[in-house]
Amino acid sequence: MPDRMPSNPIPPFEDAVYKRSWKNQLRVIIFEADTFWGKFFDIALLVTILLSVFVVMLESVKEIGQSYGWQLKVLEWVFTVLFTLEYIARIVIVKKKWSYVSSFFGIVDLLSILPTYLSIVFTGTQSLVVLRSLRLLRVFRVLKLARYLTEATNLKAAMAASKIKIFVFIGTVFISVVIMGTLMYLIEGGTNGFTSIPRSIYWAIVTLTTVGYGDIAPQTVIGQMMASVIMIMGYGIIAVPTGIVSAEMVRKAPNREISTTSCSHCNRDGHDYDAEFCKYCGKSLDS
Amino acid sequence: MPDRMPSNPIPPFEDAVYKRSWKNQLRVIIFEADTFWGKFFDIALLVTILLSVFVVMLESVKEIGQSYGWQLKVLEWVFTVLFTLEYIARIVIVKKKWSYVSSFFGIVDLLSILPTYLSIVFTGTQSLVVLRSLRLLRVFRVLKLARYLTEATNLKAAMAASKIKIFVFIGTVFISVVIMGTLMYLIEGGTNGFTSIPRSIYWAIVTLTTVGYGDIAPQTVIGQMMASVIMIMGYGIIAVPTGIVSAEMVRKAPNREISTTSCSHCNRDGHDYDAEFCKYCGKSLDS
Amino acid sequence: MPDRMPSNPIPPFEDAVYKRSWKNQLRVIIFEADTFWGKFFDIALLVTILLSVFVVMLESVKEIGQSYGWQLKVLEWVFTVLFTLEYIARIVIVKKKWSYVSSFFGIVDLLSILPTYLSIVFTGTQSLVVLRSLRLLRVFRVLKLARYLTEATNLKAAMAASKIKIFVFIGTVFISVVIMGTLMYLIEGGTNGFTSIPRSIYWAIVTLTTVGYGDIAPQTVIGQMMASVIMIMGYGIIAVPTGIVSAEMVRKAPNREISTTSCSHCNRDGHDYDAEFCKYCGKSLDS
Amino acid sequence: MPDRMPSNPIPPFEDAVYKRSWKNQLRVIIFEADTFWGKFFDIALLVTILLSVFVVMLESVKEIGQSYGWQLKVLEWVFTVLFTLEYIARIVIVKKKWSYVSSFFGIVDLLSILPTYLSIVFTGTQSLVVLRSLRLLRVFRVLKLARYLTEATNLKAAMAASKIKIFVFIGTVFISVVIMGTLMYLIEGGTNGFTSIPRSIYWAIVTLTTVGYGDIAPQTVIGQMMASVIMIMGYGIIAVPTGIVSAEMVRKAPNREISTTSCSHCNRDGHDYDAEFCKYCGKSLDS
Repeated sequence: MPDRMPSNPIPPFEDAVYKRSWKNQLRVIIFEADTFWGKFFDIALLVTILLSVFVVMLESVKEIGQSYGWQLKVLEWVFTVLFTLEYIARIVIVKKKWSYVSSFFGIVDLLSILPTYLSIVFTGTQSLVVLRSLRLLRVFRVLKLARYLTEATNLKAAMAASKIKIFVFIGTVFISVVIMGTLMYLIEGGTNGFTSIPRSIYWAIVTLTTVGYGDIAPQTVIGQMMASVIMIMGYGIIAVPTGIVSAEMVRKAPNREISTTSCSHCNRDGHDYDAEFCKYCGKSLDS
Repeated sequence: MPDRMPSNPIPPFEDAVYKRSWKNQLRVIIFEADTFWGKFFDIALLVTILLSVFVVMLESVKEIGQSYGWQLKVLEWVFTVLFTLEYIARIVIVKKKWSYVSSFFGIVDLLSILPTYLSIVFTGTQSLVVLRSLRLLRVFRVLKLARYLTEATNLKAAMAASKIKIFVFIGTVFISVVIMGTLMYLIEGGTNGFTSIPRSIYWAIVTLTTVGYGDIAPQTVIGQMMASVIMIMGYGIIAVPTGIVSAEMVRKAPNREISTTSCSHCNRDGHDYDAEFCKYCGKSLDS
Repeated sequence: MPDRMPSNPIPPFEDAVYKRSWKNQLRVIIFEADTFWGKFFDIALLVTILLSVFVVMLESVKEIGQSYGWQLKVLEWVFTVLFTLEYIARIVIVKKKWSYVSSFFGIVDLLSILPTYLSIVFTGTQSLVVLRSLRLLRVFRVLKLARYLTEATNLKAAMAASKIKIFVFIGTVFISVVIMGTLMYLIEGGTNGFTSIPRSIYWAIVTLTTVGYGDIAPQTVIGQMMASVIMIMGYGIIAVPTGIVSAEMVRKAPNREISTTSCSHCNRDGHDYDAEFCKYCGKSLDS
Repeated sequence: MPDRMPSNPIPPFEDAVYKRSWKNQLRVIIFEADTFWGKFFDIALLVTILLSVFVVMLESVKEIGQSYGWQLKVLEWVFTVLFTLEYIARIVIVKKKWSYVSSFFGIVDLLSILPTYLSIVFTGTQSLVVLRSLRLLRVFRVLKLARYLTEATNLKAAMAASKIKIFVFIGTVFISVVIMGTLMYLIEGGTNGFTSIPRSIYWAIVTLTTVGYGDIAPQTVIGQMMASVIMIMGYGIIAVPTGIVSAEMVRKAPNREISTTSCSHCNRDGHDYDAEFCKYCGKSLDS
């Protein structure tokens, strides 16, 4: 809830946007989430996105698709027209049009309406409208964006710091599954589902990640011994990404208690417990 | 064992409750676990709950259900009557009746007897009596409650501190499985078990969490490549909740035991437990 | 290699045991691993145990069991007689006989020979000789026992410190799988493998631990939604034991750099980097 | 990009190698990755390795192998001849020939060409050329090798520090699966896929590592109870390697960035990066 709302819960529309031009008013509503109507628009949008994704899902279920086919079709078109209007509105009101269109959300917004129009010409493309669910990422704007962005920046920094570790990890996994898959192809001799090397590599990934579908499984004694080695390796390897993420999170976490004392002179805080003088202005922290 | 029990192991009943009114006496026994009889009651209750849950389980096994049908039925009703009496007793003796009835344990206590009575009218509801197992949470009262509550509070604080991280994590997983499920539905073309989008999303969850039943599994080459990507993603994503919990637990854990002794000479602390002399001024810590 | 071996690699037998009584000599060889012959005996024992376990395994493989039946039988009896002699020797030479017989290794030593003798009377008990593999734990004596014991003590202390956390964790898992299993039994209506509550609970454990055999798998839409919830729960719950163990290991790890300076006065070390005076004797660390 | 390249992107060949003997020139190109042509050679080599591994994979897919059989065969021989020439070149130009031939990469280089030649005499060996993918490890030389080596050294140190923990862990897992596998063999009585002890041990590994193929799964009530115990154990045991790696990585990670600046007045350090005044004596850190 914005601070500038003193008494009435739903402020008059003009009040909320401070008599700006209609373009500016729309911009505040559509692109921001700090005013009442801006928040209202974003939440309504999220609900609409969820509903439209749900409609596409229902349509794919055969029994429902056959019974309520045209009703779902109509709903789907209603949603698409709504999202198209929103997309046009966004382009119209934004100043740097190209920077919106080529931004991540600009592309996602386009991708979320395109499949329905394409489905007139090509069949099968329609299911792609679930790409719409990517639009749900807008939810982060409704929440306290700033805090989320800080988290994301932290995560990005953590990823960057662990870049080599991650690269070495993925490289090792890649080389391991290629070699193991091929060995299993040779051991099982093209039978028991190990019909080709790519398929055997697929099995090695299924096993190493401890997913284990069981559609392909070794039957020979040597194959099962080899598989046991892969499983125990996978059991151990999973510790590596976990360790990397844990270490980064521990490092980021304030595992150092910081004194709540603030300097009586410059009013800044964040001092250590053993600090006797302000580290910003040099005055004594006691006086 | 309470402290106030000097010599005889089973104290006279009146002694244990200190000549209070019968309501008060019952209240101490039923709602508390610090006196001998209070503890006795709680442990007896836990055993009874376990037995009654066990009876319901046995009844659901066809061979046993058919051979010992009426005996189990009788037992089930005996337990229900016992629990009903207990529920009535709790309502009668408690002062703030509504606050008990509407509390978590009040609702669980009601839910644990209701299904049996409902089974006279509706069939099938009877198995719901295993909700009784929720009553086993009372076990924490028999243990040192205080310590457990501290743990729970710590956990709650940790959860609150990681709220955004958890929200972002679940949101990402949700959007990922929706998009991946739909892509697999398109790739596998409604065959090999990927008969609808919801079912494909179910498969994506089964795969991402590394459960991997194998009742639905991709058969096309592109499908298996896509599945490989999901598996390795899932393998990496599992590191995130683990990292969050680890980091919180590391943060809460006392990093190093430090003596609270401070030097009587220079008044500085932070000494190890095995320190005999002040590490700052060199005077003995004992004097 | 013991320190007291100056020149010849295999010392004369009498030399190694220093002319003690034959009982003492045997005791040093059988119960200790610091002398050459003591180490030799322990390693020979470990190899024999591995071989005997291997023989039992081979015997259970039908094709091998039928082809080499009596040869394996003879080997099995040879091993059993050897282990019996060793067991008797241990009882004879040890001073506190009962404390050995009732110790963990005493019981394991008995259990490793008993099944073969019992197999004369009862059939099927013979496979139990693989309990012999428990004897392999003796390997820790050949390695630097002291260091291993420190590790074990650390682990035990860590477990004790996390006792409540572990208890709460297992309790929560137990109550969760009972309730989820029953709900799935009701949802799937006794079909698709969910034929009884215990079996459904078994399925819930298979799913929550992300093992996922797939022999039992939900087929109804509500069942699959329920299963998805359990999987994501399991995905998150696995973070708890991992977090507990990680936190304990981080806590135990020397995550504090300790100065290598040792006091010039009392020669003790383990001082902090900022220490100016020895914390044991109070003299200056600089002089 | 090397520092010594002032203006033109592709330096004249002779310039890059500074008029050394042709052997030296080749050595710098083939064995090093700091000059332009050295880097170019290594990247071209990596692409060629990837392509040749890809060709072998395609050949194993029946449909492709039958349609494009001889084209793939030709490609395979082209790659093999290229790699053979490279192998010979390496031997010729290197000074300590034997130390290259017997090094890890020397052996891998030989193994990557041998299978094709062997496939003239023996059938089936050809698939072993995917061992070529091990050559991809050369990628680490193209990247900043020094940094990678530091990572690897850290990892090695971490492994060495955790050696006993890892040994105890693998030993415990080994003994556990042997005993559990045998118990399951006895419980399920040689049916439901538990046809021998080695096969039952294989099942125990599949279950403990939470892979869970489902090709072998217990059907008896006691078997399923036993399996539940193994699964929950496996769920807990996975925490151990994760905890070890996490603890090591946390320990290695710089807990908090601390400025190396020391106060010019009192000479004490340990100041934060944003500190402007000494926290001990209050003087400015700049002067």
